[in-house]
Amino acid sequence: MKRSSVTATEVERFEDGSFQKKPDLLTVEEPLEIRLGHGKGADRKQKKVSVTMRTPGNDFELAVGFLFSEGIIRGMSVVDHICYCINKESGEEEENIVRVELKEDFELKWESDRNFYTTSSCGVCGKASIESVETSTSCSILENGVPQVEMDILRSLPKKLRSDQNVFEHTGGLHAVAAFNTNGELLMMREDVGRHNALDKLIGAAQIAEMDLSQYILLLSGRASFELIQKSVIAQIPVVAAIGAPSSLAVNLAQNFHMTLIGFLKKDRFNIYSDFGRIRKNAS
Amino acid sequence: MKRSSVTATEVERFEDGSFQKKPDLLTVEEPLEIRLGHGKGADRKQKKVSVTMRTPGNDFELAVGFLFSEGIIRGMSVVDHICYCINKESGEEEENIVRVELKEDFELKWESDRNFYTTSSCGVCGKASIESVETSTSCSILENGVPQVEMDILRSLPKKLRSDQNVFEHTGGLHAVAAFNTNGELLMMREDVGRHNALDKLIGAAQIAEMDLSQYILLLSGRASFELIQKSVIAQIPVVAAIGAPSSLAVNLAQNFHMTLIGFLKKDRFNIYSDFGRIRKNAS
Repeated sequence: MKRSSVTATEVERFEDGSFQKKPDLLTVEEPLEIRLGHGKGADRKQKKVSVTMRTPGNDFELAVGFLFSEGIIRGMSVVDHICYCINKESGEEEENIVRVELKEDFELKWESDRNFYTTSSCGVCGKASIESVETSTSCSILENGVPQVEMDILRSLPKKLRSDQNVFEHTGGLHAVAAFNTNGELLMMREDVGRHNALDKLIGAAQIAEMDLSQYILLLSGRASFELIQKSVIAQIPVVAAIGAPSSLAVNLAQNFHMTLIGFLKKDRFNIYSDFGRIRKNAS
Repeated sequence: MKRSSVTATEVERFEDGSFQKKPDLLTVEEPLEIRLGHGKGADRKQKKVSVTMRTPGNDFELAVGFLFSEGIIRGMSVVDHICYCINKESGEEEENIVRVELKEDFELKWESDRNFYTTSSCGVCGKASIESVETSTSCSILENGVPQVEMDILRSLPKKLRSDQNVFEHTGGLHAVAAFNTNGELLMMREDVGRHNALDKLIGAAQIAEMDLSQYILLLSGRASFELIQKSVIAQIPVVAAIGAPSSLAVNLAQNFHMTLIGFLKKDRFNIYSDFGRIRKNAS
């Protein structure tokens, strides 16, 4: 079942003024169907909730992270087990279908017609999108000024992410997200062809490990969109730093939830867009 | 109704060793709801088909491009008109809701339960995803070897995109897509916070202008995912070049439809992943 996140191919490469056939590596992109299962016997129900194009690997984490960050489950306490579905004909595991089996005493509103794509439930203006995060999830406003992060530690994070991000160096094709503690230690890193998947994998891994993200710093290898900040708010991550640019709605959402949002993070330069109070400007 | 794609903010910037409050610009991200309308009187129907987080501007193009590239409409021949919805209370246009009104003689299967998100209809493996493009759309395999593109023209495209891409220079927050002819002339460029939206805008603009994309080169400012290649196949674009990396499934799909897919395009170096025959290696 161990599937690779890169695959070999042959390309026609133009370099140094001429063409040559060369072996090359590609980031793997494959669909993953996420299903929910519940009950036994006559009460047994199963439902497809999403298909996402992802890089294979950490699929259970991705499934849990997606369900959690979309507000469908509140955590692992409602999960009985997670498995790949079995192909009835071959008896083998389907590598692209994960089922999250819920505990029998958990009441899921199956009849709900809610579309599980977050952006589909956002309403029709930025303000409504932000309100939908406030009302449809159980997340709360983050606590002011906690944790404190030293500026020099913040500046050191991009280099640490790069040295840990192996596949990117081979294929240039993956987004990465990483969680650091306030000492600047990298605790967890996840990669995917889709940036929302990389974040779902990390959030799911934290849920499975019962790791509370509310004292950590999240680093995004690319830009910060509304969707990524929404997932981070639901996971109660207090400090999010992006190597790329944030969008207007990402900044608005961060401000509303008192998250510290940093953009264009480099060693020598960065911008803070909200809740400056968590960044200690002079290391003592 | 002219809405800006950038908005002003104030940031706390760390630079040259110290912090300063500075004015800055953000890329605007706002939801756009796309609706279909059909019929009059008692037969009148309206349906929400999608909400996407996009950068305002070229909204009608985005709506048409989305509907076309998802295989919901076959082109402008079935469209009566496009409008922003009117708020019943204020009488004003809703800036984030676009309705594509279909001609009365067009039969739309309203009752279809199809999920309009392409990736959701992809089946459960890469092969099934590719087959779904083949069977669910009216697009055909591209003609071999046509058009011919001179290598030196290909290499000149990234610089032309950069000089045309204004907002990016201000905010660093936008994806761009551009269509070039085989002389290397930039015919059309669209930007968005979401790469799929930028491509939908371009494809929609081409549909509205009755511009046949089958002789053109598409340049993507970032990576080439399955979704972007799928949209390009449906729009029958024969040559797609990305500044970033393609994914495995993007390469597979391009190979299946005989599209020429180029990655990591720079002036001095690039890779061709499929259908090399369209690239003329030595300019005469």
